[in-house]
Amino acid sequence: MDFLNLKPLAEQLFTDIRALSFDGIGVTRDSYGAGESAAADYLRRVAGQHGLSVQSDQAANLVFSLPDEDARAPAAWVGSHMDSVPQGGNFDGLAGIIAGLLCQIARKERGARPALPLRVIAFRGEESAWFGKAYMGSGAALGKLTPEDLALRHRSSGQTLAECMAAAGADIDAIATQQPLFDRALAAAFLELHIEQGPVMVARELPLAVVPGIRGNVRHNRVTCIGEPGHSGAVPRWLRKDAMFAVADLITRLDEHWKVLLERGSDLVVTTGIVSTDPAEHSISRIPGKVDFSFEVRSKSVDTLEGFYQLFRTECKAISRDRGVHFEFDRRIETSPATMDPALSELLRKACASAELPVEAVPSGAGHDASLFANAGIPTAMLFVRNEHGSHNPDEAMDLDDFMLGTRVLYDALNALDTADALPRTE
Amino acid sequence: MDFLNLKPLAEQLFTDIRALSFDGIGVTRDSYGAGESAAADYLRRVAGQHGLSVQSDQAANLVFSLPDEDARAPAAWVGSHMDSVPQGGNFDGLAGIIAGLLCQIARKERGARPALPLRVIAFRGEESAWFGKAYMGSGAALGKLTPEDLALRHRSSGQTLAECMAAAGADIDAIATQQPLFDRALAAAFLELHIEQGPVMVARELPLAVVPGIRGNVRHNRVTCIGEPGHSGAVPRWLRKDAMFAVADLITRLDEHWKVLLERGSDLVVTTGIVSTDPAEHSISRIPGKVDFSFEVRSKSVDTLEGFYQLFRTECKAISRDRGVHFEFDRRIETSPATMDPALSELLRKACASAELPVEAVPSGAGHDASLFANAGIPTAMLFVRNEHGSHNPDEAMDLDDFMLGTRVLYDALNALDTADALPRTE
Repeated sequence: MDFLNLKPLAEQLFTDIRALSFDGIGVTRDSYGAGESAAADYLRRVAGQHGLSVQSDQAANLVFSLPDEDARAPAAWVGSHMDSVPQGGNFDGLAGIIAGLLCQIARKERGARPALPLRVIAFRGEESAWFGKAYMGSGAALGKLTPEDLALRHRSSGQTLAECMAAAGADIDAIATQQPLFDRALAAAFLELHIEQGPVMVARELPLAVVPGIRGNVRHNRVTCIGEPGHSGAVPRWLRKDAMFAVADLITRLDEHWKVLLERGSDLVVTTGIVSTDPAEHSISRIPGKVDFSFEVRSKSVDTLEGFYQLFRTECKAISRDRGVHFEFDRRIETSPATMDPALSELLRKACASAELPVEAVPSGAGHDASLFANAGIPTAMLFVRNEHGSHNPDEAMDLDDFMLGTRVLYDALNALDTADALPRTE
Repeated sequence: MDFLNLKPLAEQLFTDIRALSFDGIGVTRDSYGAGESAAADYLRRVAGQHGLSVQSDQAANLVFSLPDEDARAPAAWVGSHMDSVPQGGNFDGLAGIIAGLLCQIARKERGARPALPLRVIAFRGEESAWFGKAYMGSGAALGKLTPEDLALRHRSSGQTLAECMAAAGADIDAIATQQPLFDRALAAAFLELHIEQGPVMVARELPLAVVPGIRGNVRHNRVTCIGEPGHSGAVPRWLRKDAMFAVADLITRLDEHWKVLLERGSDLVVTTGIVSTDPAEHSISRIPGKVDFSFEVRSKSVDTLEGFYQLFRTECKAISRDRGVHFEFDRRIETSPATMDPALSELLRKACASAELPVEAVPSGAGHDASLFANAGIPTAMLFVRNEHGSHNPDEAMDLDDFMLGTRVLYDALNALDTADALPRTE
């Protein structure tokens, strides 16, 4: 089967969905919002045109299948997410869905009757940018959304996650039971193709890479440092309780710890993506009395995550003492690191080797829906496609030829899986 | 004359103007905006009720005089400003105007014919919170507003200062000539009563204090640190160009320099009142590619101001090298430090002593309209009234008894000035 026949279709899908969600700078496909739903409607329509069946699951994710396959038989699942960050890029998430659909279309064109049906799942709500919580769609499917999660509010509309999910068609009562809505017995394997979001593969000239593991994280969406406002000219240094100088001091201390831990060989990234004095009251001539910021640490190691989090809290205490401020923390949110299935990953590596591609492992610093499947005991593997300029920005750049190579490798691995012995469960 | 007769009037003026400009949290009297104009209209009406004449000058400031005084004779001027910061306090600025008006009303009631007429000026636009520029009203009167100043934009409406001043009735063409519109020959002296904006007088139990000098400042309304956005999980530390970590590093370095300079005896305060990642694109999982912040340094010494500013620029360069970011600076804005007139200040000190009050000097960390009069060569003095919780916040708290003491001292000093020899000009 010549996969390149499908390249014009891939190009059209990427182009059309980009146009649907273009915001003037990048693409905005807000989780459970207008942008994501427009992409979902489009995918539903195109899949129908190509003879695929489409259903929504109870979490409002889309599930695509070939009409003649047994819906109650264990299947190989391929999936990724439809949503994007605000002013994000077109490939983060979407690439994995389109790759899966192309595999289904290729199977349909070939007319084969594989033992293991192929189902493609297009998740909603993977990005944490909108509600401060990631993996909402896959989490809901796997019974991992808590009542606190469902009460989180949209960054600009203020609506709760439950309200927005319900509006998109999700069954909130079912999700709120925290029981898995996705029948794990029906998943022989989960595979996700995704663009690399870091600079490693471009630097190493790798079109594709197999992911050995995914970093977990610990986060606070909002930490508030409270000091004392005052006139900038009239309060001497020894009487100041400047919330901004306190937060700057904190970030600088975290940066120092980070440096030291890297030197000791830890896997670690630290980010304060949102920092702001209070727009309702800040001015050039006012000592900031209040600063809000987000905190995030990511690592492949649970111990490193917990150790750094404790350092963070300890430094907040020390700065409170030193600078007469105090810190208030919202709910701690965590995502576990995940290890990929060695046997399933080996099928991807073999498919790369057959296509005469270099075979290298590149760990994922970013989290993915695949983590939740891996941590639910389902054999899971990920394939990275080279991508320039990172992700979560309008400049992400995946070469369509790299993408077609990745789709081909995914297709070959799925065929290999079809003839392979059942993968061992890690549960 | 028993000044306490005027206390109910003072109370009413403060209460009414507070009610006019209450925003739910503090008072908001926006420069050349609705809040300031409401206060101006009110003052105009009340002054009329008490038999004072009111005129607008070419900069839309209000000038109050007794109707039987010679408008073309040199006068003693008393003034302060009507505007406030957003969610500010009621006394910062307004106290000095009400004190002046009470002195005029007292003179009128007494029926005296002093040699030196008394004029009260209520400035607009003293606070930098709205356009990033302070002393706009007094600056316009003294020919100190530049075309760049007039092109500054309002923090929320985006209108230019020129547009807003014109809407308030100012003669922009005249102001744009940068010629003094205020005839300095008509000012024998300038006196300003103002609340203290720092914590010193409360700590030292001083109801009043005479101000020996006013700190100047150097500012940037907006400095932008530009790094490179990226996915928080996918970019390792050595490849990051995190604009927020860079700004935190900068602030921490400035704090270190500040500490060292204070130990060496320098007069210095440093503030970054506004700091923010970009709300259009920031998220928890995105490395900040852009951070905006304001910079302000204040000192009584021009050398200290300039020295610290150069340190600031040098550290920006060093951090650019260290962290792969760069900094963009808007226009540097400066206000010169000002020294008060010794002879005029002595009249205030004597009036304090006559009222059996402690006589102490408390320098002003904040800038005032009085600075511009001092630097224009007009003999200028300032009287501070004790005030709790600082200023530029809704909690500022001046005791009305302290205020009445201050008004009495101002009145007595004006009378003493009336019989004193002409003050020497410092120009």
